[in-house]
Amino acid sequence: MTDGPVIILVHPQLVENIGMAARAMANCALAELRIVKPRDPWPLGEAHQRRISGAASGADYILDGARLYEKVEEAIADLNYVYATAARTHDMVNKIFTPRAAALDMKARALAGQKTGVMFGPERTGLVNDHIVLANAKITVPLNPAFTSLNLAQTVLLVGYEWYQAQNETPPLQTHYGDSRPATCEEYLNFYRRLEEELEAAGFFVADHMRPAMTRSLQSMLQRAEMTEQEIRTWHGVISALVNGPKRSDKSKA
Amino acid sequence: MTDGPVIILVHPQLVENIGMAARAMANCALAELRIVKPRDPWPLGEAHQRRISGAASGADYILDGARLYEKVEEAIADLNYVYATAARTHDMVNKIFTPRAAALDMKARALAGQKTGVMFGPERTGLVNDHIVLANAKITVPLNPAFTSLNLAQTVLLVGYEWYQAQNETPPLQTHYGDSRPATCEEYLNFYRRLEEELEAAGFFVADHMRPAMTRSLQSMLQRAEMTEQEIRTWHGVISALVNGPKRSDKSKA
Repeated sequence: MTDGPVIILVHPQLVENIGMAARAMANCALAELRIVKPRDPWPLGEAHQRRISGAASGADYILDGARLYEKVEEAIADLNYVYATAARTHDMVNKIFTPRAAALDMKARALAGQKTGVMFGPERTGLVNDHIVLANAKITVPLNPAFTSLNLAQTVLLVGYEWYQAQNETPPLQTHYGDSRPATCEEYLNFYRRLEEELEAAGFFVADHMRPAMTRSLQSMLQRAEMTEQEIRTWHGVISALVNGPKRSDKSKA
Repeated sequence: MTDGPVIILVHPQLVENIGMAARAMANCALAELRIVKPRDPWPLGEAHQRRISGAASGADYILDGARLYEKVEEAIADLNYVYATAARTHDMVNKIFTPRAAALDMKARALAGQKTGVMFGPERTGLVNDHIVLANAKITVPLNPAFTSLNLAQTVLLVGYEWYQAQNETPPLQTHYGDSRPATCEEYLNFYRRLEEELEAAGFFVADHMRPAMTRSLQSMLQRAEMTEQEIRTWHGVISALVNGPKRSDKSKA
């Protein structure tokens, strides 16, 4: 069996749902839970502890091993490929997987040594665009379009269930990365930050209200490219070159 | 889209679980809910009504259309093929489907005009053997063998999810029934009852404690045969002939 994806709960509201998500993870032999800024203070008080443990129904070992984060960016920093679960269509260009197709993709990546993760948004609102854009792809569960509201633990269960089923299937062919390796989310994020700073300094963002949409659009596009660590370094070089301008280099002599 | 299976909840204990099962059904575009002797008196009192409706999260239309039954036998009487969800292996010979394979089977049966149903047992104990034997096949969800406890609504969700996914797939070839049609559960049950009575009268059950296991074993075997209505009538004739003994028929003259 390959390593399963890390399950990342973003701003979960109810401890019961965290407990039930842990139980669903145990059902599917998934082990690694990360929680970004839950509503209730962590470590939990006694009453909350009782409620979460009741909902986990014996999957406490997953809760005990869970790691807490302040921000989504930190929770995914070490991952190579991140999926965002989202029910609705957002206005960005995105790869959209079914849970079944995503499961095969996760398996292929695990076999290639990549570490994957799946983000789940808060109960009522789901993931916001600023978090979805941090992912490389979306997962949308194909269900009754007239009634799509799935609870948090059920979405975790369906993703985990498909991952578990996919362990017996052969994934499609995967990308070969040559001498490099796929970049981590942290490497991507460093690059975006730098790009944004440079664009800011260059006066690229003429109207402030356009800025989030433009940033997200650049980010989403680069995310889909699935760059290697080497390619990101190359891009850093590109930005440096562009910022510093012509310098009587070999090229300017030509 | 083909007609989905009827969802049959056998002795559900908590109204919240019935509500969540209805929500999972709505997610998967399943419409017909049958409830056999729930723990709480039905129609529900005001407090229970609030709890079930909260859990259903908008799927009240499924609860409103739900039908109540005193016995499993009545709840499945009109169905042609019934699946029993069960996590553990029981001591009967049984066809065991994964939810995915069952979904294709359901679709094929629906296309052939059969009405199917899936039974789900009470929360803690699951279905008892006496109820499992009424089904033609079992559904077992392949999940982490070290942590198989799924809650009721989650099991409904996984079965419904696979049924919904199967709508885009072509089912394998199905049985052709000639001029007859598949028997209903009621026709099977009438036959078992009669067979048991005749065996009783004939002194077949030498030890009373052996009786349940023997009856179940006969029932399970006949269930797997997937008889037509015509074949069941033939069997009734067989029993009559055996019971009434030789009657100077053509055969005895031979």
